[in-house]
Amino acid sequence: MADKKQEFVTHITPRDKDFSQWYTDVVTMADLMDYTPVRGCMAMKPYGNRIWELIREGLDRRFQETGHENVSMPMLIPESLLLKEAEHVEGFAPEVAWVTQGGTEKLQERLAVRPTSETIFCTMFAKWVESWRDLPLKYNQWCSVMRWEKTTRPFLRTAEFWWQEGHTVHATAEEAEEETMTMLNVYRDFAEQELAMPVFCGQKSDKEKFAGARATYSIEAMMQDGKALQAGTSHNFGTNFSVPFNVQYLSKEGKLEYCHETSWGASTRLIGAIIMTHGDERGLKLPPAIAPYQVVLVPVAAHKGGVLEKCAEVAEELRKAGLRVKLDDRDNVSPGFKFNEWELKGVPVRVEIGPRDIEKGAAMVCRRDTFEKASLPLEGLGETLVKMMDDITANMFRVADEFRKAHTKDVFNMDELGEQVNGGYARAMWCGDRACEDEIKNRFSATSRNMPFDQTPIGETCVCCGKKANKVMYFAKAY
Amino acid sequence: MADKKQEFVTHITPRDKDFSQWYTDVVTMADLMDYTPVRGCMAMKPYGNRIWELIREGLDRRFQETGHENVSMPMLIPESLLLKEAEHVEGFAPEVAWVTQGGTEKLQERLAVRPTSETIFCTMFAKWVESWRDLPLKYNQWCSVMRWEKTTRPFLRTAEFWWQEGHTVHATAEEAEEETMTMLNVYRDFAEQELAMPVFCGQKSDKEKFAGARATYSIEAMMQDGKALQAGTSHNFGTNFSVPFNVQYLSKEGKLEYCHETSWGASTRLIGAIIMTHGDERGLKLPPAIAPYQVVLVPVAAHKGGVLEKCAEVAEELRKAGLRVKLDDRDNVSPGFKFNEWELKGVPVRVEIGPRDIEKGAAMVCRRDTFEKASLPLEGLGETLVKMMDDITANMFRVADEFRKAHTKDVFNMDELGEQVNGGYARAMWCGDRACEDEIKNRFSATSRNMPFDQTPIGETCVCCGKKANKVMYFAKAY
Repeated sequence: MADKKQEFVTHITPRDKDFSQWYTDVVTMADLMDYTPVRGCMAMKPYGNRIWELIREGLDRRFQETGHENVSMPMLIPESLLLKEAEHVEGFAPEVAWVTQGGTEKLQERLAVRPTSETIFCTMFAKWVESWRDLPLKYNQWCSVMRWEKTTRPFLRTAEFWWQEGHTVHATAEEAEEETMTMLNVYRDFAEQELAMPVFCGQKSDKEKFAGARATYSIEAMMQDGKALQAGTSHNFGTNFSVPFNVQYLSKEGKLEYCHETSWGASTRLIGAIIMTHGDERGLKLPPAIAPYQVVLVPVAAHKGGVLEKCAEVAEELRKAGLRVKLDDRDNVSPGFKFNEWELKGVPVRVEIGPRDIEKGAAMVCRRDTFEKASLPLEGLGETLVKMMDDITANMFRVADEFRKAHTKDVFNMDELGEQVNGGYARAMWCGDRACEDEIKNRFSATSRNMPFDQTPIGETCVCCGKKANKVMYFAKAY
Repeated sequence: MADKKQEFVTHITPRDKDFSQWYTDVVTMADLMDYTPVRGCMAMKPYGNRIWELIREGLDRRFQETGHENVSMPMLIPESLLLKEAEHVEGFAPEVAWVTQGGTEKLQERLAVRPTSETIFCTMFAKWVESWRDLPLKYNQWCSVMRWEKTTRPFLRTAEFWWQEGHTVHATAEEAEEETMTMLNVYRDFAEQELAMPVFCGQKSDKEKFAGARATYSIEAMMQDGKALQAGTSHNFGTNFSVPFNVQYLSKEGKLEYCHETSWGASTRLIGAIIMTHGDERGLKLPPAIAPYQVVLVPVAAHKGGVLEKCAEVAEELRKAGLRVKLDDRDNVSPGFKFNEWELKGVPVRVEIGPRDIEKGAAMVCRRDTFEKASLPLEGLGETLVKMMDDITANMFRVADEFRKAHTKDVFNMDELGEQVNGGYARAMWCGDRACEDEIKNRFSATSRNMPFDQTPIGETCVCCGKKANKVMYFAKAY
């Protein structure tokens, strides 16, 4: 048994040997996805797809609570619409997949497989908005989008990915800005509470903002190799789209005014973020809120009378307590094999029940996050484990947050910056010039991540050019 | 007020004047969808989209209960995969939208925007299935698909539509046939229980079956103009796809065997079916299970002290009872206007509360299906209305089923058939020849719908050619 266990575990490349290979190993061995014959496109297998469904549920609940409604827009967008906003088309045109033929008919106008849907939303908003009474419109859609990426990696960067995109229309600039902030906070809250993932919130530089936005805000997570992963973005467009798309409303005073718009999105990248925030040598470590199974129940000495029956009974009780439970009653693999497999798949809690446990009216409970093991009474086990889930989430957040803090440093010159971004975030003063961002990118492959809302200066001069600087910026290498 | 009401209602074209225009009026005035600048593609607005979400929930729950798992496959399919199954490509190629360019790169091979996903599923199944231990695989995906239709109508036939497609792999022919039947019954059960929509279940003719299937089964609903609407299909492929795609498994006996496969789907067409099964002169009539709001609460004399507060309180109590409730507290339209609007939108129950109702500790409750109006005590109103929902569903089913029975007739010659399909289903004996189907199509624009499982003969000769016949077939005009 010990040998088999050893063998199973060593299939995963150690994180410190090759983090990138470790990631690929976890993604495939935990059966989250598979590669397909379609260039850069993945298939989400049941386990990975279920994680995405749970992410959707958690986000969608928050969208409803903040007054949003779901809609479904066409997946194809005529080229002429894409061309209406100059910065936008410049940003997205290079990575658009084009439909040029429909059935036997060669199309007069190419259709883009949507890379994002601002242009079609704005086209419809121009139809749907007439007066101030129609505002705000706060819509969201769940769909997949397509970007013709050169190099792809499962969940992190795929030609097709699944996401939600919120699109809202407001009467005033203030309301649009408030919406942008509300949704940034929705993402932060979701990341912290459900993904146990601490994030940096702040504003993007002009260079890094969304093509067509007036201002982009992001939540940035830190992976265990110290690199950044942009986990959600919220854009304030001002009137950048409403002017070319003619989205206007008649005000209470009877004046025709341009609307103020926002958009915001989060995607299947979040699954990559979860893996690289929490995973370890044994594989995936899932936060309970988005774990397809929160508890796996493994019978020990299952051939002994009454064991399987007891396990089924306990599984049912745990389900009644509101937990997602897998009873692994396979008879062709050993309990040890199952332990390894479910650890690899990141199930938060394993419960083992054998004849001796039954005798004692207890079960052996093992936490995935701490590997703590304890014999706990079967009576009230559901309630115990429900509480344990909260404790696991809190502990996973604490561990990730300590890592994040330990790998974030203030830097005051380029040498320090270069060293820091090798394994973490560098906080630095920045003059605001794109030239300095380019220089940092060229020398260290690091990019500006965002400017935190707390802009208390940590110095007076730009980390790069040495000129007077009044912006605090996080720099890091990024996925 | 009376005038305004009159005016509001007359916007809808009467059903008997022009059923097709009535349908279009309801679809747009109930704010379910809107037309877009993308040829044949619609946008689902919040109200229509919410109906689809509720349909999804009802179906998905049944899919889970019957042991299926959701996955997500790429939306683009390389042409070479599509070409592997001859009948399949012949059936779908004429209506495929083709991606020929990715970014700046002209593609070596065209990619189809999926019209359906058998070919990509089978490609992945060939990777995923090795031995009998891997079987069955019972997968489903929720997505949109694209078919380049010449003429389109909202929900009924759109270039892009939203659907689910189940794809399963089995070791034996028996298991595949059992799965095909199980899923047909899932559709039937869902249609009856949640959509209050009676259906004809049976097998399609070879002419009408799915391109590539060995056998196709369908549920067929009857619209109020007597026409048929195919509301769900379940296909048994046998080994038709597993052979060209090489989906094989190693049996317990160590022999390599071809798998037996199925697929089954239902789509946003169901929304069209609901409209045309239940709607009336006032508009939409929604079955409670898929109504975005099951109850709308309209304050009467809302300016009077305490009315709005009481309404908010009652709304909260009804929500606690598990009902989806809309409190319409708009102050710029009259109660009468609201009554009409929510009738048009098909909300099953309207609750009116004014000062006199509050005094009596009661509320005026009006059913959309029967227009029955009664003053009911506020105490226990939640429970009362929850029960009323079941009653409404049962009544809507009963009315639709009576209509269906009244518009279904046995026919014994072509004259009778031609007359019957002008406003209903014709049950007839059929020899099984495609030539007779073609003749019926040419003369009456009617098609074979399906062969009921009860094949007790109603005659001995084919309704068309007069030769010996042993198949009972339903014929009807169809959407």
